[in-house]
Amino acid sequence: MTLTHPDASPLNQPLGGNEMPRFGGPATMMRLPTQKDATGLDACFVGIPLDIGTSNRPGTRFGPRQIRDESRMLRPFNMATRAAPFESLQIADIGDVPINTFDLKKSVAIIERYYDELLKHDVIPLTLGGDHTIALPILRAMAKKHGPVGLIHVDAHADINDQMFGEQIAHGTPFRRAVEEGLLDTNRVAQIGLRGTGYAADEFDWGRAQGFRVVPAEACWHRSLTPLMAEIRAKVGGGPVYLSFDIDSLDPAYAPGTGTVEIGGLTIPQALEIIRGCHGLDIVGCDLVEVSPPYDAHGQTAVVAANLLFEMLCILPGVARR
Amino acid sequence: MTLTHPDASPLNQPLGGNEMPRFGGPATMMRLPTQKDATGLDACFVGIPLDIGTSNRPGTRFGPRQIRDESRMLRPFNMATRAAPFESLQIADIGDVPINTFDLKKSVAIIERYYDELLKHDVIPLTLGGDHTIALPILRAMAKKHGPVGLIHVDAHADINDQMFGEQIAHGTPFRRAVEEGLLDTNRVAQIGLRGTGYAADEFDWGRAQGFRVVPAEACWHRSLTPLMAEIRAKVGGGPVYLSFDIDSLDPAYAPGTGTVEIGGLTIPQALEIIRGCHGLDIVGCDLVEVSPPYDAHGQTAVVAANLLFEMLCILPGVARR
Amino acid sequence: MTLTHPDASPLNQPLGGNEMPRFGGPATMMRLPTQKDATGLDACFVGIPLDIGTSNRPGTRFGPRQIRDESRMLRPFNMATRAAPFESLQIADIGDVPINTFDLKKSVAIIERYYDELLKHDVIPLTLGGDHTIALPILRAMAKKHGPVGLIHVDAHADINDQMFGEQIAHGTPFRRAVEEGLLDTNRVAQIGLRGTGYAADEFDWGRAQGFRVVPAEACWHRSLTPLMAEIRAKVGGGPVYLSFDIDSLDPAYAPGTGTVEIGGLTIPQALEIIRGCHGLDIVGCDLVEVSPPYDAHGQTAVVAANLLFEMLCILPGVARR
Amino acid sequence: MTLTHPDASPLNQPLGGNEMPRFGGPATMMRLPTQKDATGLDACFVGIPLDIGTSNRPGTRFGPRQIRDESRMLRPFNMATRAAPFESLQIADIGDVPINTFDLKKSVAIIERYYDELLKHDVIPLTLGGDHTIALPILRAMAKKHGPVGLIHVDAHADINDQMFGEQIAHGTPFRRAVEEGLLDTNRVAQIGLRGTGYAADEFDWGRAQGFRVVPAEACWHRSLTPLMAEIRAKVGGGPVYLSFDIDSLDPAYAPGTGTVEIGGLTIPQALEIIRGCHGLDIVGCDLVEVSPPYDAHGQTAVVAANLLFEMLCILPGVARR
Amino acid sequence: MTLTHPDASPLNQPLGGNEMPRFGGPATMMRLPTQKDATGLDACFVGIPLDIGTSNRPGTRFGPRQIRDESRMLRPFNMATRAAPFESLQIADIGDVPINTFDLKKSVAIIERYYDELLKHDVIPLTLGGDHTIALPILRAMAKKHGPVGLIHVDAHADINDQMFGEQIAHGTPFRRAVEEGLLDTNRVAQIGLRGTGYAADEFDWGRAQGFRVVPAEACWHRSLTPLMAEIRAKVGGGPVYLSFDIDSLDPAYAPGTGTVEIGGLTIPQALEIIRGCHGLDIVGCDLVEVSPPYDAHGQTAVVAANLLFEMLCILPGVARR
Amino acid sequence: MTLTHPDASPLNQPLGGNEMPRFGGPATMMRLPTQKDATGLDACFVGIPLDIGTSNRPGTRFGPRQIRDESRMLRPFNMATRAAPFESLQIADIGDVPINTFDLKKSVAIIERYYDELLKHDVIPLTLGGDHTIALPILRAMAKKHGPVGLIHVDAHADINDQMFGEQIAHGTPFRRAVEEGLLDTNRVAQIGLRGTGYAADEFDWGRAQGFRVVPAEACWHRSLTPLMAEIRAKVGGGPVYLSFDIDSLDPAYAPGTGTVEIGGLTIPQALEIIRGCHGLDIVGCDLVEVSPPYDAHGQTAVVAANLLFEMLCILPGVARR
Repeated sequence: MTLTHPDASPLNQPLGGNEMPRFGGPATMMRLPTQKDATGLDACFVGIPLDIGTSNRPGTRFGPRQIRDESRMLRPFNMATRAAPFESLQIADIGDVPINTFDLKKSVAIIERYYDELLKHDVIPLTLGGDHTIALPILRAMAKKHGPVGLIHVDAHADINDQMFGEQIAHGTPFRRAVEEGLLDTNRVAQIGLRGTGYAADEFDWGRAQGFRVVPAEACWHRSLTPLMAEIRAKVGGGPVYLSFDIDSLDPAYAPGTGTVEIGGLTIPQALEIIRGCHGLDIVGCDLVEVSPPYDAHGQTAVVAANLLFEMLCILPGVARR
Repeated sequence: MTLTHPDASPLNQPLGGNEMPRFGGPATMMRLPTQKDATGLDACFVGIPLDIGTSNRPGTRFGPRQIRDESRMLRPFNMATRAAPFESLQIADIGDVPINTFDLKKSVAIIERYYDELLKHDVIPLTLGGDHTIALPILRAMAKKHGPVGLIHVDAHADINDQMFGEQIAHGTPFRRAVEEGLLDTNRVAQIGLRGTGYAADEFDWGRAQGFRVVPAEACWHRSLTPLMAEIRAKVGGGPVYLSFDIDSLDPAYAPGTGTVEIGGLTIPQALEIIRGCHGLDIVGCDLVEVSPPYDAHGQTAVVAANLLFEMLCILPGVARR
Repeated sequence: MTLTHPDASPLNQPLGGNEMPRFGGPATMMRLPTQKDATGLDACFVGIPLDIGTSNRPGTRFGPRQIRDESRMLRPFNMATRAAPFESLQIADIGDVPINTFDLKKSVAIIERYYDELLKHDVIPLTLGGDHTIALPILRAMAKKHGPVGLIHVDAHADINDQMFGEQIAHGTPFRRAVEEGLLDTNRVAQIGLRGTGYAADEFDWGRAQGFRVVPAEACWHRSLTPLMAEIRAKVGGGPVYLSFDIDSLDPAYAPGTGTVEIGGLTIPQALEIIRGCHGLDIVGCDLVEVSPPYDAHGQTAVVAANLLFEMLCILPGVARR
Repeated sequence: MTLTHPDASPLNQPLGGNEMPRFGGPATMMRLPTQKDATGLDACFVGIPLDIGTSNRPGTRFGPRQIRDESRMLRPFNMATRAAPFESLQIADIGDVPINTFDLKKSVAIIERYYDELLKHDVIPLTLGGDHTIALPILRAMAKKHGPVGLIHVDAHADINDQMFGEQIAHGTPFRRAVEEGLLDTNRVAQIGLRGTGYAADEFDWGRAQGFRVVPAEACWHRSLTPLMAEIRAKVGGGPVYLSFDIDSLDPAYAPGTGTVEIGGLTIPQALEIIRGCHGLDIVGCDLVEVSPPYDAHGQTAVVAANLLFEMLCILPGVARR
Repeated sequence: MTLTHPDASPLNQPLGGNEMPRFGGPATMMRLPTQKDATGLDACFVGIPLDIGTSNRPGTRFGPRQIRDESRMLRPFNMATRAAPFESLQIADIGDVPINTFDLKKSVAIIERYYDELLKHDVIPLTLGGDHTIALPILRAMAKKHGPVGLIHVDAHADINDQMFGEQIAHGTPFRRAVEEGLLDTNRVAQIGLRGTGYAADEFDWGRAQGFRVVPAEACWHRSLTPLMAEIRAKVGGGPVYLSFDIDSLDPAYAPGTGTVEIGGLTIPQALEIIRGCHGLDIVGCDLVEVSPPYDAHGQTAVVAANLLFEMLCILPGVARR
Repeated sequence: MTLTHPDASPLNQPLGGNEMPRFGGPATMMRLPTQKDATGLDACFVGIPLDIGTSNRPGTRFGPRQIRDESRMLRPFNMATRAAPFESLQIADIGDVPINTFDLKKSVAIIERYYDELLKHDVIPLTLGGDHTIALPILRAMAKKHGPVGLIHVDAHADINDQMFGEQIAHGTPFRRAVEEGLLDTNRVAQIGLRGTGYAADEFDWGRAQGFRVVPAEACWHRSLTPLMAEIRAKVGGGPVYLSFDIDSLDPAYAPGTGTVEIGGLTIPQALEIIRGCHGLDIVGCDLVEVSPPYDAHGQTAVVAANLLFEMLCILPGVARR
């Protein structure tokens, strides 16, 4: 087995604990090398430090920083799936999108342009959010490249509000906008983990009317989601798929550091089953959003997020399993 | 469908997020209007800021304040049960009972008088505790109005101590006193979630000897409680029922902010199954006790409590489901 | 001595600790009564839950809620100055300005309109921020009513940036805009507490060029500010004066819960000397901004803020001293 | 110089860091030996885990535990004063008073009996509170032994309320009761650090009317208190003196973990000057009260308290200075 | 039944809540009496305040202190199993091992000598860690007394690294060393809960090659572990067994206060099933390691640890069940 | 004025807030560029993530990470001194020293070799600690290059213990070793801020006997240290000087996040006066040690540390003042 890439250049590896104690070294994702853009990369980690689309507790602007910091324990192999992403893909941390923290609409435009540029490379972005507003400009760029994409959306909230406080753009509206703009292949969309209180009793039915598979949290309780994921793969497969994972899909016991908390959510084993259950799909991009560090000072939520991002890396097309 | 009440006056609604950001507006329960007493109400939220009945960690005196604060995200509809409490009931937050924080016995008397007065109205009180001592004076008032009541008591502890440090009144004794005083219809009582260590190996058997159904936490592990609740409804139905929910029934992973923590407790899905499983009973009052804010600075426990109180509202007699 | 107002109606009083324990009762400012608008009031507390003008740590959106919560200990008399504001003024908490948390520029317009309306009453607003962006729309309304006002600006930062990230409106620009728009009587402006690092070595000189008295933090170290305030009163007096107090003027030891922390700041005694030193000026409005609760879970900063707001109340024109 | 006592038995020494790491060993005060009562002791540390006399935030019940825990760094010599208490006095930690946490009045009686018994020994107690209510029963026992005592009372509050919520016994009333009961030599009483808001503008004048020297916090700002302490010694000397130190006398920047926070308080250097300034007085007992651990999770306030208790030990009659 | 021991001396009992409030009294394990060594004891609690073998977050040096503190709620009977350890065994807290916090290798030698001495008594030690390095010297002493022992090792990590940063001794290597040194009966070893990322995809297979039963966390998800424990008992029985429980085997939702966090771990019910499932084995020693208090200020993790240590006590040979 | 260096290459600048929001971008010191070694640099920031020399609370291993994170607000100009370090010096962050966290003595050797190598460049290192043990190997390297150096040592502790727990190397011994090894010009040494308790009453006199100027904290209270620094400059000048700043020199109100807390310390203004008072000396290296992030979750201490490191940069030889 060889640690080199088709182009014979050695692949980036996370800085190991035997070279530098895990509490030292660069505070990059998995202590990977950084580069300015995606040249030569198969996959990249990119941060979007945005939180001005948030409706309750802020703080996701610090999500990318804390997720990177708390990714320091991650070693290169996935013991459960035996995935070895750093043996097959060239991966780096390309830093953050320079959003305008004083103007949400301008930030959305900045993000869209950034991903337009990024996707000129043949690279799969794994995005560290940031609030869920970011899914809209990313999906815009994705759709320009791939056409309407399938979507696996893991979340406590459907995020299909028409407006929030009269605004079209906010963290509760991206998937309504995405449908309206034709960014999604609506028959290849699944929403998992929805729950809580709402403004209308039939709020979750809107997605169903578009063709979505909607799986409320209650349907997930007390069971493995591995069988569900077989159904979901059948539903969303057959084309490029985007995976958008809102950390508030998890019960707050597992992920307290987020802004719009809903009780009764998914467990960590279920989250892992969902992501591992995406193996085999044509994933073209992933995000992990809504980690709010001020509400989780010791970083438990960011540790979860860092691990889930690593699990996403492990199910990308082309990742070897040993 | 109409948003009006039999008496044609419009029903109170929680202040919505499109009128005022959720982090603003009044820090009342669900951002509801307040009123001084229960006149005209079908249900009311009332706080009892008591913690001097507590035997380990204090702080439940701040429970009502923090539960109200953290209720700010609650929207009016229950997405899982499609209950629409604000479409059928007139509901308000009537503030706090002015307990005497320097004298537990006087506080118990104040609470009893307060609920005597309150129950002159045809209103169902949902009480925000406060430590569990408050169940005794509330049950005294309930029994005066309804006769001995059925009880669903969700808790880590049986709270049937004869004495604590020689005292008859404390947060570990209310249900012993309630039995002695004839406040409970003892064949219509269920205790769910009991566990932990005790002063005698047969401590949980006392309740059984009174006719209680006692369900230890171990009997709840790894399963849905929906089947159990069918049995419980059969056990406690047939008359007025009081629901007393101690937040420490939950495992501390879900509700760290409490005073007498016991490991191995209920999960949030189980808590929701219990409350939703009370639908159809003749609930005459509910409480949610033992939330201790100093031990949960970011309010995760209070978010749980606020949601559970909303779920209690949703199973009250007369609440419409859409 | 009489507790009544010229119009013979009794004056509002804070709810006392002998009527309701301080940890209970309404979570309003000083547990005062609320009303919807300023009708009949001499002074009012009003909240602006804004934080999207913030450049580093967010969270000031929760400032008004936490300041109100932590104001619960405040009793009606100022023991140091013997001021008795509730004996001479009619005061209430009028709630929050419904800002648009997804659009900073729209929020600025909402705030301006709100204060235009508010100032139709003969009332002195004491504003609970919120980030410092709010000073601009408040000053616009103030200037419409009073003409250009004097200003006492207590802060770690001059907040006179021309732009931030290309934007005219942000929490670092309000006083540049205010000067440009003619809202300030620039020879009656004092800035106290400035310090830290900057983008240009002569950044603090811009204000001096406008006629401001600029007092850096270093000039305040190790001494009472009572003599300084005599000079400041001479500088800013002779007309209406607005007092804008950024909590980050204080050293973070005293006020850790804020967003753009600078070390080496004012002490609490100095803050009290500054506010008490404003006695005798024609104060037409005050604000206390930049309290960020997520960074101060137990509310130390909000306790400071609540006390400083009370001290501001105590130096308003017309407040009796016993 | 010898490390032995008149009776030739070796004196207790704190467990040193070279015998056991400071984070290990017994969690007693200064890692001293414990004993059940005061037999053979010259001074003793004793805890009173009481907080039900508290009017705002609770938690002082954990004061003794956390102060002991955080005393682990204390070495035997005072570097500033060269006091060597363990070279001249036999000192131990005698544990806690078994208060009744469900009944404040009974607890006061328990404490009084405990100190009556304790003072049968010729021992100086240094008490770890607990809320300030405990000063009353301690002073009762002191007065039985010594007659009316002088008092140095360091506090943000005068604690001379006639009643709180109608009660005679609470943490805001002990010194009113002590005067009424003749426990104090009222011309030998000093109160230092008073400040904040009050129920009446002349609240601090009551003590003055009894003959107290009352030093408000404002009189302490920006200066050394060494000169003041010369005056205080002259005032309170000439007989036995009790030192009661409420941690809320300090500014909350120094001691955030307390229940009834007032801004603008003493600094740590001033606190040290006050205690060191008591050297030479006939101190018959000391307490350090109102440390509330739930509001200071990392124990900064308890570290302060542990140090101040050590400083009290260092000024006891008979302590050698090297 | 009698509460006395074969030698007719009464058995030690935990200090009860009716004698001293639970927040007072000695901060020993379960508020038990202490003694200097194990003379006359059947079982003992002993602390090892070590954290310099830790590779990521430190803090386990404070584990013994915080576990003892948070054990204060434990009453003497196990309600689930009806075990009554204090009716059959003489148990005390014998304090801490005086490790050398500046030298890991010397500390390992100190611990080995300490346990050599301890095991001269016929006592079962229950060790409060400390990081997992301590398992090596304890097993060395165990093997000297008992020969190679069976092992139940509950952990997120296999701890069978050959080296860490070139070192043979660290918290990730003890079981590799134990195998090499012949301390384990390798066919009577089970590892439960392994998961996460690794340095090699086949890392968990090394143990299997030695004869270990290796149960990854994924095999535990969504189910009771009672059936597994029947298999484990069959695997490890037939000789003396040591139980080593790393708190990070639990999901961080249950035990956030630890150093090398891995998501997707065991639940508390599963942890209880594992320990209760050891009943009937010839347990010769137990440890609970890797509790790191700085990462769990309110002690949730230590509460879990204290309970698990009590559960270990309840399954020791000779413990009566009522 | 020119932003270029003698070799005409542009000088590194911190990433500005108008290019990337301050909560994004690289988590390097001041968001500066990184490089692997010191080639071409005039000054460099370097981290040493060590905490195994610590005797009480650990955590300084995370000091470099958190100081870098919290340095994100620092802008390039010093407003008080008008120093413009980035206009005259080439500065970068060169990352961390790969210490061996399992062996303190080996780590000391690693650090010494690292600084030997580093000082082959003509660069002034500003070291982010790490515990104070690191001062010894740094001083060894300094002395090899410069001969015995002068020292300004700001600390609560003298750190001149002969041994700790029998060890020569620990965070309380570096300056004893440095004297013994001839690394210091003992007549050009000043220690500022010493205080607290000790193992011997004359502990601070050892340094005086070596020729040190020892300034206890008590001598600093209530005053500016600017006059003191004139004396210190005269004392330590006339040769190369090393500045070692232990964050625990500050009162814990200003810097709670440290391991061996002593009350009554320096204020932030005094710390700034000390560092600014070093201007004009021939500073050859600086360190800022003992920041322990686990004890300061929101990073107040790290903000202080980051600012003090910037102030150190501003007093280096060759830094321009505008």
